[in-house]
Amino acid sequence: MSQVYDTVIIGAGPAGLTAGIYAARFGLQALILEKLAVGGQIILSSTIENYPGFPGGISTFELMDKFKTQVEQLNIKIEEKQVRGIEVEEKSNSRVYRLQLPDTYLQTKTVIVASGAQPKKLGIKGEDEFIGKGVSYCGTCDAPFFRDKEIVVVGGGDRAIEEAIFLSHYARKVTIVHRRNELRAAKILIKKTQNNPKINFVFDSVVEEIQGENNVRSVLIKNVKTNSQTTLSCAGVFIFVGIQPNTGFLKNFLEMDKLGFIITDDKMQTSKVGIFACGDCRKKDFYQVITACAEGAIAANSCHKYLMDE
Amino acid sequence: MSQVYDTVIIGAGPAGLTAGIYAARFGLQALILEKLAVGGQIILSSTIENYPGFPGGISTFELMDKFKTQVEQLNIKIEEKQVRGIEVEEKSNSRVYRLQLPDTYLQTKTVIVASGAQPKKLGIKGEDEFIGKGVSYCGTCDAPFFRDKEIVVVGGGDRAIEEAIFLSHYARKVTIVHRRNELRAAKILIKKTQNNPKINFVFDSVVEEIQGENNVRSVLIKNVKTNSQTTLSCAGVFIFVGIQPNTGFLKNFLEMDKLGFIITDDKMQTSKVGIFACGDCRKKDFYQVITACAEGAIAANSCHKYLMDE
Repeated sequence: MSQVYDTVIIGAGPAGLTAGIYAARFGLQALILEKLAVGGQIILSSTIENYPGFPGGISTFELMDKFKTQVEQLNIKIEEKQVRGIEVEEKSNSRVYRLQLPDTYLQTKTVIVASGAQPKKLGIKGEDEFIGKGVSYCGTCDAPFFRDKEIVVVGGGDRAIEEAIFLSHYARKVTIVHRRNELRAAKILIKKTQNNPKINFVFDSVVEEIQGENNVRSVLIKNVKTNSQTTLSCAGVFIFVGIQPNTGFLKNFLEMDKLGFIITDDKMQTSKVGIFACGDCRKKDFYQVITACAEGAIAANSCHKYLMDE
Repeated sequence: MSQVYDTVIIGAGPAGLTAGIYAARFGLQALILEKLAVGGQIILSSTIENYPGFPGGISTFELMDKFKTQVEQLNIKIEEKQVRGIEVEEKSNSRVYRLQLPDTYLQTKTVIVASGAQPKKLGIKGEDEFIGKGVSYCGTCDAPFFRDKEIVVVGGGDRAIEEAIFLSHYARKVTIVHRRNELRAAKILIKKTQNNPKINFVFDSVVEEIQGENNVRSVLIKNVKTNSQTTLSCAGVFIFVGIQPNTGFLKNFLEMDKLGFIITDDKMQTSKVGIFACGDCRKKDFYQVITACAEGAIAANSCHKYLMDE
């Protein structure tokens, strides 16, 4: 227990793995902790087409496996352990962070939080069953699989409307199901949908069930005002009811917005010196694999500079 | 000449090509212009090991070729044309930018500047005179000309050390001259030089003059602490002391720092609305392929949002 790491990276998605690659190249004593599966939430999508370097796309699992190999070739270990919380130990003239694991703890000079986020789920029947078989949480990733098909988009915020517009470039018909009779999305986005013959709306309604056999075939929709139910045929259901950052274990420790996204500067520095954050757990505008990777590299660079200045 | 593009991307390095991939996926009418060679200055290096997704590294030429293929698969054209300057045309209630090319011009609603940077010169006597006669800014390009010869590498960053290692496969002896007594380069790189009997260091020193007749024969080195001068025989001088942005054509048009790097916010928005900048031409802290790519994606996203709001 006497070992003190230069840095411990929490999370083995694109941001955390890239932070690992860069930390290793900077010669840091680093460790990556992952509570679930290496790869992060991107592996919810089957294929990624917008990561530069892979024309025609690549399976997200394969891409993340390449990242993992690259990290391991640099002798950085990835351990499957969940971090429960972080404490500061101020020493005479240094600062050490103590990471609480389920059965023990780790000491480290710095922390790179890359704990990601997860899509908010509807929590309805068929949702988990058809993930990757018609149920998706990422239009950018999966739209091309629904060329000339009918799809349902659930949600009424900016992201839902943006994704619906994006999806309409591929799908034959996009039906946006929203629980209220008014959209939360920016008017400019709404206006765009009004000139789009492929997009139509079902208001005051919720999706109650996703149905199909091997793949999605329909959704059961309930009007929340009349309680009437209808079945709508579709090949895909895109759910955009928000993402939630995996930052509960850092509550009251790091500065966050009210949704729990960690606030950093452009060097990925959080409200605590020596603690950096990158990827989807971070408050920002554009949540992509390529941006998560860049933030991981920047976090490792900032971490290296911080350690050199100590 | 009546066509007005949604966006024209200036530069086909990692930033510009990624901006192209994202612009295409947002459904924008886009065009990429490149004055020299697709790939940008990264192709001056032989191999890249820190781009996530390629364990063991990949030749930079091959990686950039994959980017190019990915762009072309999305039906975005890359044209070999140099932009001389940009003018704004304010119309009744819209704004169009006019790009001056050598023999014609292009009209576009937005511009993504990804014009990159080029190696900085030392600005010393003999440097210009012996370019191509022993003075080089690209190990990958010129190493084979220095087989079994003695060469000098100037610089102490990642690029200098990477190139020194590469050059040592050809040269008999590589002397790295660095103005400080400590290298800025990643420790993994520094370690590689320590096990390499061909590489040695001269610290606290600068090259003051490059000497020779038809070709380089020696350099004059000054120790910055003692001011003593020594002459070192060599057939080649490889200079890796930083980069300077290719932004001369935008002088007095966009806000830049005093070195000519374009100033943007974190959405890649420059001082002119509808003009975005990304990659090595941008003022920032960390110049990497992965960060250039992320900035290209962010620029395309901001560009898309701007066009939707118009």
